[in-house]
Amino acid sequence: MEAIPYLAAASSVMGLMLAAYFYSSVRAADPGDERMVFLMTEIQKGARAFLKKEYTWVSGFVAAMAVLIALLIAPTAALTYVLGAVLSATAGYVGMTVATMANARTTQAAKEGPGKALPIAFRGGAVMGFSVAGLALGGLMLVYILFVLVLGVEDAFEVVTAYGLGASSIALFSRVGGGIYTKAADVGADLVGKVEAGIPEDDPRNPATIADNVGDNVGDVAGMGADLFESYAGSIIAPISLVAFALGLGAEDASVATNISLLSFPIAIAFVGMLASILGSFLVKGGDSTDTKALSRALHMGTNSAMAITAVATVGIAYWLFGSDSAFDNPLGLAIAVVGGLVVGWALGKTAEYYTSDHFGPVKKIAGQTETGPATTILGGISAGMISVAASVVLLAVGVALAYWGGEMAFDSIGNLDGGIYGIAVAAIGMLATLGVVVSVDAYGPIADNAGGIAEMAELDPSVREVTDALDSLGNTTAAVAKGFAVGSAALTALALFKSFEFAVVQAGGTLSLNIGEVDVFVGLFLGAMLPFLFAALTIDAVGRAAQEMIEEVRRQFREIPGLREGEPGVNPDSARCVEISTEASLKEMLIPGALAVVVPLVIGFVNINALGGFLAGALVSGFCLAIFMANAGGAWDNAKKYIEAGALGGKGSDNHKAAVVGDTVGDPFKDTSGPAMNILIKVMTIVSLVFASAFVG
Amino acid sequence: MEAIPYLAAASSVMGLMLAAYFYSSVRAADPGDERMVFLMTEIQKGARAFLKKEYTWVSGFVAAMAVLIALLIAPTAALTYVLGAVLSATAGYVGMTVATMANARTTQAAKEGPGKALPIAFRGGAVMGFSVAGLALGGLMLVYILFVLVLGVEDAFEVVTAYGLGASSIALFSRVGGGIYTKAADVGADLVGKVEAGIPEDDPRNPATIADNVGDNVGDVAGMGADLFESYAGSIIAPISLVAFALGLGAEDASVATNISLLSFPIAIAFVGMLASILGSFLVKGGDSTDTKALSRALHMGTNSAMAITAVATVGIAYWLFGSDSAFDNPLGLAIAVVGGLVVGWALGKTAEYYTSDHFGPVKKIAGQTETGPATTILGGISAGMISVAASVVLLAVGVALAYWGGEMAFDSIGNLDGGIYGIAVAAIGMLATLGVVVSVDAYGPIADNAGGIAEMAELDPSVREVTDALDSLGNTTAAVAKGFAVGSAALTALALFKSFEFAVVQAGGTLSLNIGEVDVFVGLFLGAMLPFLFAALTIDAVGRAAQEMIEEVRRQFREIPGLREGEPGVNPDSARCVEISTEASLKEMLIPGALAVVVPLVIGFVNINALGGFLAGALVSGFCLAIFMANAGGAWDNAKKYIEAGALGGKGSDNHKAAVVGDTVGDPFKDTSGPAMNILIKVMTIVSLVFASAFVG
Repeated sequence: MEAIPYLAAASSVMGLMLAAYFYSSVRAADPGDERMVFLMTEIQKGARAFLKKEYTWVSGFVAAMAVLIALLIAPTAALTYVLGAVLSATAGYVGMTVATMANARTTQAAKEGPGKALPIAFRGGAVMGFSVAGLALGGLMLVYILFVLVLGVEDAFEVVTAYGLGASSIALFSRVGGGIYTKAADVGADLVGKVEAGIPEDDPRNPATIADNVGDNVGDVAGMGADLFESYAGSIIAPISLVAFALGLGAEDASVATNISLLSFPIAIAFVGMLASILGSFLVKGGDSTDTKALSRALHMGTNSAMAITAVATVGIAYWLFGSDSAFDNPLGLAIAVVGGLVVGWALGKTAEYYTSDHFGPVKKIAGQTETGPATTILGGISAGMISVAASVVLLAVGVALAYWGGEMAFDSIGNLDGGIYGIAVAAIGMLATLGVVVSVDAYGPIADNAGGIAEMAELDPSVREVTDALDSLGNTTAAVAKGFAVGSAALTALALFKSFEFAVVQAGGTLSLNIGEVDVFVGLFLGAMLPFLFAALTIDAVGRAAQEMIEEVRRQFREIPGLREGEPGVNPDSARCVEISTEASLKEMLIPGALAVVVPLVIGFVNINALGGFLAGALVSGFCLAIFMANAGGAWDNAKKYIEAGALGGKGSDNHKAAVVGDTVGDPFKDTSGPAMNILIKVMTIVSLVFASAFVG
Repeated sequence: MEAIPYLAAASSVMGLMLAAYFYSSVRAADPGDERMVFLMTEIQKGARAFLKKEYTWVSGFVAAMAVLIALLIAPTAALTYVLGAVLSATAGYVGMTVATMANARTTQAAKEGPGKALPIAFRGGAVMGFSVAGLALGGLMLVYILFVLVLGVEDAFEVVTAYGLGASSIALFSRVGGGIYTKAADVGADLVGKVEAGIPEDDPRNPATIADNVGDNVGDVAGMGADLFESYAGSIIAPISLVAFALGLGAEDASVATNISLLSFPIAIAFVGMLASILGSFLVKGGDSTDTKALSRALHMGTNSAMAITAVATVGIAYWLFGSDSAFDNPLGLAIAVVGGLVVGWALGKTAEYYTSDHFGPVKKIAGQTETGPATTILGGISAGMISVAASVVLLAVGVALAYWGGEMAFDSIGNLDGGIYGIAVAAIGMLATLGVVVSVDAYGPIADNAGGIAEMAELDPSVREVTDALDSLGNTTAAVAKGFAVGSAALTALALFKSFEFAVVQAGGTLSLNIGEVDVFVGLFLGAMLPFLFAALTIDAVGRAAQEMIEEVRRQFREIPGLREGEPGVNPDSARCVEISTEASLKEMLIPGALAVVVPLVIGFVNINALGGFLAGALVSGFCLAIFMANAGGAWDNAKKYIEAGALGGKGSDNHKAAVVGDTVGDPFKDTSGPAMNILIKVMTIVSLVFASAFVG
């Protein structure tokens, strides 16, 4: 049992080696003709430039936080905080680099059909998947082994938690900054290009096309990578912190048998999940068939096998760790909690799919509502999004109850640690243990999307675009599952961190009332429920302002560059300027909402710690509801538009289509900026509070 | 002091007499020519038919609830429940009757200028204002005097609380049903009339025009009347319940000196407020001037004087009731709580005005966003609405903190009753004590609006319409204040009722944990935060479906009635059929969301009472945020459209205007259906829980 952290560290190295292997195999593929290489390089340059600038800006924030942590908590905690931030940033950078390499190679392979292109896109995604999982787990195990097991520093578990805060900081800024970038470029390119100049999407004449493709990479790839790095690390840290703070553990207690079991359980699942993911990734094979159903099966095969293996292994781990210790009643309960979490995460994803895929009623209904114009289309999406909140909250409540019940079955309580609460804390790890392969499939989507963009911009044969479109649409259902995991695990992790916060305050010698019958807690609850609304408004406005700058630049180029709109040979737009504008605007706009998430809980915590407790709970429930609402309303509009574009209700160019485009544009910042950032917002605020708990009390 | 309830009862009779006097004076005015009388009668018939049908449907619900209350609580509570429902319905009916009488008379008087028309519209509104205030206070005092003071029945204070539940039930269904009706007719009339047939608003050729005008009355007048009846009664009942349940009072305790003071304080303020309102209503005089600024001053004079008198008198009352009792430290604190509540309510109204009036930045910004089409218009309104949530929650938090601090200043605690909590409970009464005159000014708005509609339909000289439009716009700022009071008082009242619920459970011998660190409470919090989203979705969808039925009927009539669209003389639309469709559709659609509000807390309460506590808190904070968001986003779009129609940014018919119309249509169900119903939803759920607290425990 003592070997578990070491095994997990070893598995993370294996994951990283796999990432390196996939990287070299993607690199070896043919990137296509000169024009394609040029486009790929442009996108890569733009994405790199953005990330470099973003990391420069964010490093200022990280440095300030590190100083604060060093002064108020412990210098070692500042160190792990920086490590978490650096590794998360690295994972994003690596993933983005390979994604921008894999795009043109996927396009090139698509000339030979989907069976050839699928593996390249998947392996590109897998580099990201295993970099994220490997770095997150490896870094965490390094911190755990070094500070808890080897050095046994004071406040060892605060030091571990600070690693998570580092990851959260990067995730928050990446999601917000990347989200603003991608939508500013997208909206800017669409409004002037498609609507005003009347040229198709991804047309090489549009100066914002490169920026739009860069945006896919910095938002959907780097942003999502940092997000999932944080979720994954958070889901392992949350139960560890909970155990440590509830039982008041110091480093020396980490070698007591019962404590080892409790602390190692989530790590052991992560270990098995990593191995299962590595195995699963080899099950994704293109084969010779070009049938999309067969391809879809191939893609799902990897994730489904990895999850099944992990679920079965979890039962074994539970019995192995808890079976012989009399402190525990029935180890099966903890396996139920973990697998239950996995099932609920899956169901949340399926719910999202039901409300956002054009195979089901809700999106078809919204498409039908385009008949009476954009207003009814908007109302339809809003109502579908809000109803999906109800379904998702009920599912989550079932998941929480199930995990609690499972935990109670395993043990009633050990010290201050309630079995049910431990059950909730470990429930998120089930969803995220197979992160390596889940992200591979998820990051595959934007690569296929970009491949399509390159096919268009390089003016290749339309048959190539058809292949990349088919690949792109394949990724949608798996992306839904990843989204469900992200949002479900966010709620469970935040809940566990919230409980840890409660214990941390008590451990630090403070008292904390979480009784909503008391006025300070209730006022905090109110303020917390409000914050996600403010955050959503700020990010929506940010996208609007950034898009406006982009629109003006595109208009200027069409006006000032002769022959550009007409597509005269040799006349190229100044794409680099558009990339620059998106970069500057999105970074400037990222600061206020990002800082809000860190500053507000700190201010409230130093004023009144009970109010902070209420605040975190309010933000958690209201943020979850808004996250689901925005993500699903946005997704529903997007697919209603695609449904019409595929030929339904008059197809492209009809009034219905115009109404659907309005819905899609409203949904863009919903689903790609505000919504996804909300999941991190919830966790950042909770983990900031947890790390600074002792400072609030002191 | 013992006389206070009797004095309040007497003042309510005075209010009712004033209503009767204003009624006769409105009735005496000239309703105009034959065509105007015909239109007025049609609107009146439609509105009456709707209310009759609505009350028939709702009476089934009221009867079922009464049986439940009689069986589970007490037969006397069932009696007062029915009384509250009947009086609320009566107030709505009376207000609606006079409003539909005053409309044509205002139009007729408008021929002689605004100075003549203003008093008629105001007095029409005042009938409603004083009917609502008089019946609500009179009924409540009857119940209090009879069951508490004279008969001294067992569970006397549950019996008083049940009166509030009766009022809430009617308010909920009136708001939801009326809200669906008014928007279905409005959207239906606009979409086919303005957009498809290209005829102006309120054109007599449009078959839905009468239904649209009926909708203004059943939604804005009867719905608002029932809403404010409930708010007013609730704001007096909440502190009484709180005192009674916290101290475990029976009827016999109501004659102990300290208890008398605590119980009588809100009643005494209501008494003074009623007198001040009566006085204020006489200060609204048309005068000879036709200057709109002078008219606006005249209109504000009444409310401002009444509020100032009440505020000053509150200080006196506090010293009189609490000054000589050694249980209290500083009576001034309670006056601070009450006046602070008044100021915060006013500030909430001003915040709403800032975000929704075209005199300020936010609406101008949204109007500017119409430049880039409907999508950016929608995003602008959503973000403005969400930012207004932040401002409003901060204001409310200040109000709660101030009231708490004031209450603590007055007394630390008496038995289980904390001074701060008592301060919060009485804070809402300050906003609503002058309800008589506030509603007069508020109900004036729809009367002026309807008068404009009649001027249009009767094809009067455009100068008449100009006068009614000027009157209509006058009402907007005062309406904002009334809205602020409605939403602010809803939050404070619900908070006080929530505390009463806590005490009621304990009094009934149960235990209640409100610790959000516990899983059942947290799951409840989650479910509660979700419910307002579900409720909003259901009501938005309901409007959509009802509007669709209306659209089809209007299209049918244009198709099948020859000469209708062309406006051939003697060809009239079948308006009655449209009224019928709106009525049936809105009543059918009202049932599910309405029932949800009552059934869900009952189900949760019987399953797990701690979860119910979390549920109520979650619904309160998330419902408040959504209510503000929807009301202000909707209001902002509405006025952005009006701003453009007034000539800005290309004016009527421009692309900007079209984009603004999309925003306005999205905002219609936001601001007139879902948003306003949310305030009642919060209170209904809390008061249901409070009334049934003993049953949950038993």
